[in-house]
Order: sequence, then C-alpha cells, then structure tokens
Amino acid sequence: MEFTERQARIVEIVKNSSPITGEQIAAKLDLTRATLRPDLTILTMAGVLEARPRVGYFYKDKKKTSPYMERLRQLRVGDFKSLPISIRENISIYDAIVTMFTQNVGSLTVVGEGQTLRGMVSRKDLLKSALGKTDLQQVPVSIIMTRMPNIIMTTADEPVLEAARKLTLHQIDTLPVVEAFIDEKGEERYEVIGRFTKTNVTKLFVQIGSLGAQ
Amino acid sequence: MEFTERQARIVEIVKNSSPITGEQIAAKLDLTRATLRPDLTILTMAGVLEARPRVGYFYKDKKKTSPYMERLRQLRVGDFKSLPISIRENISIYDAIVTMFTQNVGSLTVVGEGQTLRGMVSRKDLLKSALGKTDLQQVPVSIIMTRMPNIIMTTADEPVLEAARKLTLHQIDTLPVVEAFIDEKGEERYEVIGRFTKTNVTKLFVQIGSLGAQ
Repeated sequence: MEFTERQARIVEIVKNSSPITGEQIAAKLDLTRATLRPDLTILTMAGVLEARPRVGYFYKDKKKTSPYMERLRQLRVGDFKSLPISIRENISIYDAIVTMFTQNVGSLTVVGEGQTLRGMVSRKDLLKSALGKTDLQQVPVSIIMTRMPNIIMTTADEPVLEAARKLTLHQIDTLPVVEAFIDEKGEERYEVIGRFTKTNVTKLFVQIGSLGAQ
Repeated sequence: MEFTERQARIVEIVKNSSPITGEQIAAKLDLTRATLRPDLTILTMAGVLEARPRVGYFYKDKKKTSPYMERLRQLRVGDFKSLPISIRENISIYDAIVTMFTQNVGSLTVVGEGQTLRGMVSRKDLLKSALGKTDLQQVPVSIIMTRMPNIIMTTADEPVLEAARKLTLHQIDTLPVVEAFIDEKGEERYEVIGRFTKTNVTKLFVQIGSLGAQ
C-alpha cells in the first residue's frame, strides 16, 4: 500500500476520529474540501476508507480488499500489449525518424538476429539528435539508442499495474515486452515480442471506466 | 456502455446460456481461453458479468453498477492535471525544442496575452519539422503549430475518463486544460490553466491500483 504523504495524514485522521466529514478532515489539515476531494475519492475507491452519506468517513479494515482492485491486479501485459516496431542498428537516424512516422509510433526497438533486443530509441532521443549538428542521413541509430543494461523491460506475464508503475517511475513512454533466453554462449538475451506504452494504459483505463457506465 | 465486438458476443453468449465456463465461451467463439481472458476480466470488473468459482459466468443485472466504477467516473481533470508549459508563437522552432527539453515535457501550449490559447506543438510536430529543410533557428513555431479549431481541449470539471477517451480517440498525448471566456470583441477565447496527458492517466491508474494492494 503506497500512500502519498497527504493520504497518509488523512488515513491517520480518520483512524483516530471516525466518523468524520470531509469538511472536518480539511479543517484539521488546514486545506479546503475541494483540495482533498481526489484523495478522498481514491482512498474510498481503494477500499481504505468507507464513505457513508450524511455521516462521514470510516477507516476500513484492510482485510477486505475490493474485488475490483483484485481483478485490476490480475490484468497482464501480454493481453494488452501492442506489436513491436523494430529496426536494425545500422540504419540512419533519418530512416529511424521516417519509420517512426510511417508506423505512427513513439518509440522503436532496435534488434539483432532473432529479434534480440539491442536498444531502444524514443521520439525524444531522435529530437535531441536533430537539434545538434549530427548528419541524420549518415549517423547510424546505434550511436544514439539506449542500450542494455539501461533498458527498462517488461514481460507478457507481468501485471499491467507493475508495468504502468515502471513507465511513470522511469519517465518513459514505452517498455519493450520481452522473453528471456540463453544464447549459445550461455548469456541471457531478450527476444522482443511486443511493446507496452502509456497509450495501452490509457486505453485500458477508458475501457474499464466506460464499461462500468450505464 | 461501449463493448468491443468480441465483448458484445461474449455478453450475448452468457445471456443466453449461463452459467457457462470460460472454456465453453471460448469453444463457441472458436478462440482459446487465454485469448478471452482479458475480455472476461474486464467484463467482470465492470460488473457486466459475474464469475462464480467452479460454476461459471452469469450475466448481471445492469442496474447494479459497481460502486468503484461509479467513483472512477467522479474523478475530475482539475484534480489530476499538470501545470501548462507555454511559449509565445514568435519564438523559433529551435527554441521550442530547447524549452521542451529543459522543461521535460512532451508538448507545449502556444499562448497570447492573458494565457489565451493560440496553438499546441508536440514532440511529433517538432520532429517532423526537424526532418525537413526548415531552418529551425529562423522559422517561428507558429508555422508548425496546431491551431484552433483543430485543438482538442479539456476543462477542469470534465471527468478524467472523458479526457482519457479524447486522448485515445484523437491519438494525442496532451490536452490543454482551459477556461472559456468572452473577449472584448464578443468572441469565445480559452485561457490555458493546465495540461492533461497520458502520463497523468498512467499515474492515476497506478495510484488506484497500488492503494488497493495489501
């Protein structure tokens, strides 16, 4: 359970003096009710607090996790990933940018034989190189790509929630979805089987929310 | 309620022959159980189907909407938005790219007097112009920006779910959060008060999911 500092303070207040109204919690924190609204909504959704109309907030025994939240954690990357768009590391930065536009994606996986992950290039990486004096037509993409072991990856069976956390934590837009294998030299390699992006998370969020609507 | 075609077929099957197992639904659709898993999970989360262990899926009376989904729809853009990063339309494309890097954002709002929305520029727009023969230092950003009425916007009181839907539908990363006002000529204008992005949605998704965890 990961609270923000403010959420932790709200939970403490409700634990100590429930039932308590949103107005009263706000007064104790020297904040407005409007400022607290999103935290109260999230804590209630998560099943940490219970909101009873005209009474106020109660602290809920944590043993009773919301079944919806349980299901949310069962969703796996493999079921929501997109197809990977891959290039070879000897192609020019210019051609990489063109590929990004023709394929309409925000990042490319750079692969070797057998779709083995070699690197990642994002729109941001390409924009940075376009800003400098680099000859985009001559310089290969391998010069600017992010390489192992600096690539943050995910797997098909990782929970969507964990992959989404990686995206926010590392401030990136895309995770390559990989399958690990051992090559003939006994080294661990990663075959690229997909990509998982903030767009995938946003689509999933919309789908869950709109299905709940009447 | 917006179903994908496959979800609609699943719901139809469960309506007509419940209780029915995931295996049986998959057989009727000539698909594997694994392929159906995400749809079954989402339909169950949304409260459309009910899953009883060792029995199968039931169709649920829609009148009973999940209280969690109800709460999800109450979340407003204003509570989760980021600060806008704005530039003037006479600055060069080069300076716009530099601003994007120094501010570490994926898009910029172009504003006039009083933070009035004039345009939007994304990393994609800038990358496209960097690809051509444009003199990035000389050409102003107004030449490449998206202008009104082609800008998709949101407001502080719009549900997060609706804003997220706009992001996916229009394949964009950022919505400017605006407040409409009427200028001295009687025309409707929009003051930029924030930006709402796929990153905001992803962070919210992670927060909701991780709070539910034990």
